[in-house]
Formats: sequence, C-alpha cells, structure tokens
Amino acid sequence: MPFVKISVTRDGVTKEQKQQLIKGVTQLLKDVLNKDFHLTHVVINEVDTDNWGMAGEQVTEILLSKMK
Amino acid sequence: MPFVKISVTRDGVTKEQKQQLIKGVTQLLKDVLNKDFHLTHVVINEVDTDNWGMAGEQVTEILLSKMK
Amino acid sequence: MPFVKISVTRDGVTKEQKQQLIKGVTQLLKDVLNKDFHLTHVVINEVDTDNWGMAGEQVTEILLSKMK
Amino acid sequence: MPFVKISVTRDGVTKEQKQQLIKGVTQLLKDVLNKDFHLTHVVINEVDTDNWGMAGEQVTEILLSKMK
Amino acid sequence: MPFVKISVTRDGVTKEQKQQLIKGVTQLLKDVLNKDFHLTHVVINEVDTDNWGMAGEQVTEILLSKMK
Amino acid sequence: MPFVKISVTRDGVTKEQKQQLIKGVTQLLKDVLNKDFHLTHVVINEVDTDNWGMAGEQVTEILLSKMK
Repeated sequence: MPFVKISVTRDGVTKEQKQQLIKGVTQLLKDVLNKDFHLTHVVINEVDTDNWGMAGEQVTEILLSKMK
Repeated sequence: MPFVKISVTRDGVTKEQKQQLIKGVTQLLKDVLNKDFHLTHVVINEVDTDNWGMAGEQVTEILLSKMK
Repeated sequence: MPFVKISVTRDGVTKEQKQQLIKGVTQLLKDVLNKDFHLTHVVINEVDTDNWGMAGEQVTEILLSKMK
Repeated sequence: MPFVKISVTRDGVTKEQKQQLIKGVTQLLKDVLNKDFHLTHVVINEVDTDNWGMAGEQVTEILLSKMK
Repeated sequence: MPFVKISVTRDGVTKEQKQQLIKGVTQLLKDVLNKDFHLTHVVINEVDTDNWGMAGEQVTEILLSKMK
Repeated sequence: MPFVKISVTRDGVTKEQKQQLIKGVTQLLKDVLNKDFHLTHVVINEVDTDNWGMAGEQVTEILLSKMK
C-alpha cells in the first residue's frame, strides 16, 4: 500500500538513478515497516528549476549565482 | 470543494479519455456525496514510465519484460 | 498503476460513502483506460473546514454564512 | 519547513511571474507564521488545459467556448 | 483554477492565521496571474512534527535540541 | 531541494520507525543524487484504513478478510 512521491529538480537525473531511487525506497519500506514489495509504488516528480523556489528565490537563480 | 488528482503512466491517454475521466469523477462525487458539479476540480497527472516504480522496478522495464 | 487522491472537506463522510468512492473510481479507470483493478489505489483525504479556502474565505465561514 | 505547491494551468506563466509567486508566498509565510525564509520551499505545478477539469469539463473546452 | 496546498508543521496554527494564509495566497494569485478569486482553492495541510523530517532528523527532535 | 512524501496506512507506525524512514530516504538521496542532507525534506502521511482502497476495496475490509 505505500505510495512514495519523490520531488526533485529536473537537472539530468538518469534512468539508472531513477531505478536506484525506486529500488532503494522499496527496500527501505520492506526493512522498516515490513511492507510487501508488490504493494509499494514510487513516483519521481521532476520539477523545472524555474518552478522550484527556496528562501524566496528560484533555483535557477540560486544555481546561476553559485556559478559566478 | 472536492479536488481529485488522478496519477497514471503517460502511455497515450487521449483527450477524449481524459474528458471521460473528468466527467466520470465529477458525476461520482455528485452521486455519492451530493457535491455541486461547479465545485469539483479534477487534475490528471501523467507520469513517464521511467519515473514510476512498482515492486522495486521501473514500469518501463516491467512493460518490456511482458513483451518478450 | 493508477493512484487517485480525492480531497474533500471533513463533514461526516461515512465508511459506506468512502467505499462507494473507491469502487466507483476503480471501475472508472477500468472502463476508460482498461486499468487492471488490482493496480488501482485510491486515497481519500479529508480536510478540516478551517483548513480549506475558496474565493479567499474559509469553508467554515462560507457554511456559517449560508445558515444565516 | 513549509512546503507550498501551487497548481495552475499551463498557459504562458512567465519566469518573472513564477519568481513573484515564490517571493510572495515565502513572504506570506514569514508574515503570518513567522517562518524563516530559508525553510520555505515553493513548487509551481503547471497542468495542461486538457488535464484539468472543472464542473465536469476540460479547461481546454471551457476556454474555447468562452472565445466563441 | 489554481489549487494551492500549504504544508506546515502542526504547532498551533490558529484559525485566524489560516484565514490570513487563505486570503493572502488568493490575493497573490489575483495580483500575479490575474486569477479570478472564485476559482482559487487553498488547502492547509498540518503535519505532526514526528512525521516531518529535515536533514535526516525528525522536526520533534530538532525543536527539542534547540530548547536545550 | 528534494521533497519526499511517504503515504502509508495508519496502523501503528512508531516514532522510531518514522525516524528510520526519514534517515533512510535522506541517505538514499545523498547516495544516488548527491543531494545535500540539509536540503532534503521528508513528510510521512498516515492514512486511515477506511480511506485507502486497493483493487476497489477498503484496506479495512481487506485486513478483516485476511484475519478470518
């Protein structure tokens, strides 16, 4: 029954990394709560950096200012 | 007031099917909870098959293994 | 794979009504998208009327003003 | 700690408008709940008009019927 | 059409503060995106401090360690 | 920046188990995507078994039928 939604910025997460996240979270729910593998769903929500804000700033701008 | 979010894999859901989901859910909330049509919002969230995992596997891989 | 989240105000939804919502949405996803019953998850999220706002007002206040 | 998700239809929201939403919501949480700027995250979720329904109709159709 | 979900820790947010959040967000969406007041829904999701983690720690523990 | 929401049925998850979930998910995002611990937020959403449905049935009923 568990449903896990992982929201991250869209910045080149690979198919392999997504698979590692899915496997890792499913294993964690088995280890901690003894949830049957077959019941766990994981969704990865990639968010454009223009659409994510922290501390009042767009992540796009935060990343740009770090590059300077 | 109801707000319904339907998450499905992105695999060719047509505009007509989306309309049927919206109409069907809105009618269901009218039938079961007597919610005024004008208050019901429905959002359909299409998720890439690389980004959805079940039983520790990406849906992309599950679909591929079924085709073999 | 479908995951459906139904958010409604907490105002006495009964266990039977919840069951009707779950059955109805699961059937709809079978009818429209041919989704296997066993893959559909439905979560009903009941929200206190103080915590839901429409048109800038708390639902609690909207309901009270209608009773006058 | 606050996390705010703003879902709107995808209809040409500009980068500047997104920045204004992020700044405005972060300021609001500071003003009302005294939440430290650095703890507030805002995500803007743009939804295709085919994927949003109101009153049983797709927003795409509602907008088209208004233009006639 | 906008739908805004504000998640905060459950730590005594008052009914008046909730009303201020609802009014403020609705006004912001009017100011920035010219969204009609009547279309904006706001839901405040209060989360127990045991159920929210930051930097790998429960907020309950973070708050306790600050009080020492 | 990551934000992770874990939805599980409310069936006696302990404070310690919640802490293990928070630590485990935060570590996973560090290991797989190299995300700074301080940026990861985790929320655990416990859902009453009457409010979660699988395969068209309430989890409450599924659990009861398994006990017979």
